[in-house]
Amino acid sequence: MDADGNFRDIGEPDIDGAFLASGGVARVREALERGTLPVVDAGGLRVGAPVARPGKIVCIGLNYRDHAAESGAEPPAEPVVFMKASDTMVGPYDEVLVPRGSVKTDWEVELAVVIGRRARYLESREEALDVVAGYAVANDVSEREFQLERGGQWDKGKSCETFNPLGPWLVTADEVGDPQDLALRLWVNGDQRQDGSTKDMIFDVAEIVRYLSHFMVLEPGDLINTGTPAGVAMGMPGQPYLRAGDVVELEIEGLGRQRQTVGQA
Amino acid sequence: MDADGNFRDIGEPDIDGAFLASGGVARVREALERGTLPVVDAGGLRVGAPVARPGKIVCIGLNYRDHAAESGAEPPAEPVVFMKASDTMVGPYDEVLVPRGSVKTDWEVELAVVIGRRARYLESREEALDVVAGYAVANDVSEREFQLERGGQWDKGKSCETFNPLGPWLVTADEVGDPQDLALRLWVNGDQRQDGSTKDMIFDVAEIVRYLSHFMVLEPGDLINTGTPAGVAMGMPGQPYLRAGDVVELEIEGLGRQRQTVGQA
Repeated sequence: MDADGNFRDIGEPDIDGAFLASGGVARVREALERGTLPVVDAGGLRVGAPVARPGKIVCIGLNYRDHAAESGAEPPAEPVVFMKASDTMVGPYDEVLVPRGSVKTDWEVELAVVIGRRARYLESREEALDVVAGYAVANDVSEREFQLERGGQWDKGKSCETFNPLGPWLVTADEVGDPQDLALRLWVNGDQRQDGSTKDMIFDVAEIVRYLSHFMVLEPGDLINTGTPAGVAMGMPGQPYLRAGDVVELEIEGLGRQRQTVGQA
Repeated sequence: MDADGNFRDIGEPDIDGAFLASGGVARVREALERGTLPVVDAGGLRVGAPVARPGKIVCIGLNYRDHAAESGAEPPAEPVVFMKASDTMVGPYDEVLVPRGSVKTDWEVELAVVIGRRARYLESREEALDVVAGYAVANDVSEREFQLERGGQWDKGKSCETFNPLGPWLVTADEVGDPQDLALRLWVNGDQRQDGSTKDMIFDVAEIVRYLSHFMVLEPGDLINTGTPAGVAMGMPGQPYLRAGDVVELEIEGLGRQRQTVGQA
């Protein structure tokens, strides 16, 4: 989408790791300035996720003090890391499915970091921010019984089908400015449930990216979900988990807004 | 490799999810019978992993009673599931790197399951075995301090660079026969450390695949590491973790043998 709200065909096969690693953003920006990108009529088309085929989705748990508290956990001394199958990613307006047998499907609005360059053993916060291509809104949908009551590790409640709506936009890092000063909000059926700010992250984006690069290689197109503020169903009186027919809306300042209808798998 | 030990060019771009899902195995088998696949001289070439670009690597923890005991854990009531970044996969003879700052890099010989068809909500053991394309040897390399002492979830000690040697072969399910009657063995610098049998799995392959399909979609090309028997460094007197220069060899009956030299990241 350009500055006038028109959708344009960027003439690239996909916005993915290869696109980001090969200077795709600069190519598209230049073509946009030259005025050579044709306007397309996107009416009626499905909006997909703004990054294709991430190699991995790494998640940071309990990264806001108020969410750690509502989860009954101490604020962590170093980042809590878990993973989510990358085929959970869907578009920002796609249906989210409550898994069969689930009664505890929950929402989590999160700032997603999109990696633009290969990174290992980064030494500084500056190097870390340099490998970030941009940011997007993610809903880190979570099944709390699968995550916490079925034995073992959290991943079991994080990788269900459709559990990672992403988008609508990938906003480049330079256009976002300070990633630690963005409001995050989420509503269920019109009632606001989450109202936070990335200011309140325990570990900020620069530290998360630097830290992760000491445990794994980050590749172009990889996603990092940076944690959610308070206000998830698990932490609310009566625990109003998602059911088929519910509508979830979420937004992050400057990164756009998602809307999902909940269905049953 | 054919029955006479010759390497043959199978004339396909890659053995990956698309190959498996489109009947690639049957295509190659037919071409092999017709005698149309040219012999290639593989001398001096690197041997890659026998499956390209798995979408995810799902791992089952504590799946052998003796390994649960040496880890100080009770045998789990249902499968313990965690994930490993799929870009950790390397070839069977590639170098394994001890991460910077690591003093507890450990080995784990495991039967890897390769998924051949999309699977969700499988109802029976028979359906589960039907989506298995074949099997391979995996070394589920693990950093125990990162996994267990650095806060949170195991994934942090499982996704380091080079931490999932796979191969040398993908052996199709029909050629393996009973996946629950295979000997697994591992040596470090010539001393045998692991000596188990897939007979002793707590949850067998059919149950693991069926179970996982209720928590996530399994896609062609996905890998499942099914757990390791006793004999890892963490469970041994003196905990002889891997150091640069060590040589790890591992094999599973009928699936071939790996050999890795350990390096320093």
